[in-house]
Amino acid sequence: MPKVDTARFLADLNELRQIGAYKTGVHRPTFSPEDMESRRWLMERMRECGLEPTMDGIGNVIGRHQSAGPHLLVGSHIESQNYAGWLDGALGVMAGVALARAGLPVDVAAWADEEGHYGGFIGSRSFIGELSDAEIDRLTNRYHGKPLRQALQEAGLAGLPRIAMEPGRHKGFLELHIEQGTQLEGSGQRVGVVTGIVAIWQYRITITGMQDHAGGTTMAERRDAGLTAVRLLAMLDERMPMVCGPRSTWTCGRIALDPGASSIIPGKAEVLFQFRDVEETVLARMAHCLEACVQESNRRERCTTVLEAMSLSKPALCDPAMQAALAGAAEQFAPGAWRHMPSGAGHDAQYLAKRMPAAMLFSPSIGGISHHWSEDTKEEDLALCVEVLAEGAARYLAG
Amino acid sequence: MPKVDTARFLADLNELRQIGAYKTGVHRPTFSPEDMESRRWLMERMRECGLEPTMDGIGNVIGRHQSAGPHLLVGSHIESQNYAGWLDGALGVMAGVALARAGLPVDVAAWADEEGHYGGFIGSRSFIGELSDAEIDRLTNRYHGKPLRQALQEAGLAGLPRIAMEPGRHKGFLELHIEQGTQLEGSGQRVGVVTGIVAIWQYRITITGMQDHAGGTTMAERRDAGLTAVRLLAMLDERMPMVCGPRSTWTCGRIALDPGASSIIPGKAEVLFQFRDVEETVLARMAHCLEACVQESNRRERCTTVLEAMSLSKPALCDPAMQAALAGAAEQFAPGAWRHMPSGAGHDAQYLAKRMPAAMLFSPSIGGISHHWSEDTKEEDLALCVEVLAEGAARYLAG
Repeated sequence: MPKVDTARFLADLNELRQIGAYKTGVHRPTFSPEDMESRRWLMERMRECGLEPTMDGIGNVIGRHQSAGPHLLVGSHIESQNYAGWLDGALGVMAGVALARAGLPVDVAAWADEEGHYGGFIGSRSFIGELSDAEIDRLTNRYHGKPLRQALQEAGLAGLPRIAMEPGRHKGFLELHIEQGTQLEGSGQRVGVVTGIVAIWQYRITITGMQDHAGGTTMAERRDAGLTAVRLLAMLDERMPMVCGPRSTWTCGRIALDPGASSIIPGKAEVLFQFRDVEETVLARMAHCLEACVQESNRRERCTTVLEAMSLSKPALCDPAMQAALAGAAEQFAPGAWRHMPSGAGHDAQYLAKRMPAAMLFSPSIGGISHHWSEDTKEEDLALCVEVLAEGAARYLAG
Repeated sequence: MPKVDTARFLADLNELRQIGAYKTGVHRPTFSPEDMESRRWLMERMRECGLEPTMDGIGNVIGRHQSAGPHLLVGSHIESQNYAGWLDGALGVMAGVALARAGLPVDVAAWADEEGHYGGFIGSRSFIGELSDAEIDRLTNRYHGKPLRQALQEAGLAGLPRIAMEPGRHKGFLELHIEQGTQLEGSGQRVGVVTGIVAIWQYRITITGMQDHAGGTTMAERRDAGLTAVRLLAMLDERMPMVCGPRSTWTCGRIALDPGASSIIPGKAEVLFQFRDVEETVLARMAHCLEACVQESNRRERCTTVLEAMSLSKPALCDPAMQAALAGAAEQFAPGAWRHMPSGAGHDAQYLAKRMPAAMLFSPSIGGISHHWSEDTKEEDLALCVEVLAEGAARYLAG
């Protein structure tokens, strides 16, 4: 049974949270100075426990174990959403380091930009061979528009090779992550063994009207793109519940009116809309509903609405043997205090699962809070989960 | 009859549009380097036609005529909305210069920040004694948050005295402006004599929910501030038409979701909502409707909505004698091709009207476009309107 130094694991996590600290959380957007500092800090931690670290041309930090194998790959991401929580991806990365320190034959990875400042999952997609140079050329920062190429250049990564997976090296991929919900907390449980990761279908809705003065233009003349956006979103709020599944989610996270001033009728509106489910049939129903609402908007309204699918992922099921190993470890360390559960959030594991067996473990999130600086998990739960992860890894490697 | 040099007037306008040029429009936000350059440029133009210019501690540029009087005050504002049109306020300021050049005894004013980058109408309000130092301390830029005091400091205006109106000096205030609508163009007319300026009631609506992860948080658990904003705006879209008057307008120009990312349930939404009318009873009905919708939202929704009145102006009626002088001049220069009309937009004249007789003249707006770089008016209409303004001023001064 591997012996994890949980005190050191917690100390590492607390040291990492100082980089880009914001209130009790962190602000480490992808390729920001804080993000790059955290990647270099991580490489030091990898060296300390005998891994050979490399930062590649997309920002992935991969620490390679020196043993003959078989190996597991363990990790997550280290950058954060803006002004977000200290654990999120950092937890899974430092758990990988803790497993290596405990003597397990693991490679540890911090995948770049899981959080989607530039497109999302570019690190794990690059590793499995699903990120082209053409896409890198095209991607820009969703908040300030900086091209990804420029960001890579400024981070000193331009020209570095991108590390691709080595077929046959890894028996599987393991990712520890916070739950980002309240199922564990609500049922008094401390560990979640993930059964699968929902697909996320992400859309951009662009509405074009006519920018005009809010006093000079009569109501009958207006082509108010903001109003069309509001009516469309209200229609989706009515229709989506009629087609969704029991665990579906749908979210409008952004409405940007152009130019966004009090006395100007918006000439343009941009809306980000997404939905998630584990069932492909449910995803298809929800997509049809969205398309039909946009079509109906274009029939009723004076403004033109264009729907663009930005990314349509597939649900990813976790490997049964890895789930069984994690479940056995969970029952050993937390008898009766764990459960099987799906992941409502996307994770790097869903891309690794396309190439190798993959599985995930969830720790509880206090109040379910995520992507906010107040995100937190009890230290005893963090320590428990890293022990379950190590034991699960050992069991799976032995199996 | 005053002889206006319309060619010079048009040349001045075209020279001014080079300062902060953006496509065919201008970008001269209040106290930006471009705005300050235009104010200094204006002072030169004033000197050339014998006015004595001063820039005061709030950014007003006032060119004082050297004659004994009686005087008229003529002007508008010179800063622009973001990436907006070349005429808007600049037209009325340069019309004042044209009248002075034609030998009329006019003081010319460019009032600071009519466009509301920092609160709105701070220049004309300062001049009539309705802007306190405490309010200046409090105001910030609505786009980037810079405090007004800091902007004044950076513009070199900190510590300068603010010029207050001199009671008895002015027989009235005249403002030429583009219509910002299509009434003139639609009826084939070239000049509008304004009867009154609508009141604008401007509100900030702040909705507080709970920021959460868009995958981990079930639909039943969410407190989505963006969704509450959408439902409230959809309710207003249904209710407002039942209480408004025939010429009322209402507009939501801005919806800001916090943090505004695709995978985060918005924890906060800020909405700017305004309505306009010339009738106080209609304004009161619309205000009651808005308050009732917010109250109903707070009854139905999981998010808390707070309504704040940011400014509640009064309708301003134009002076009958000044209207008559302008109408006579319009009939002289454009027989049958002018009309009386209300102003749906707010203007500096509404503040001057609190202290002296005031009136406005409208030129047509091509396509009604305003607050956009493509805003335009035919040069022959601009020339006609400045001649009507000069003749109207002469008639009123003689009356």
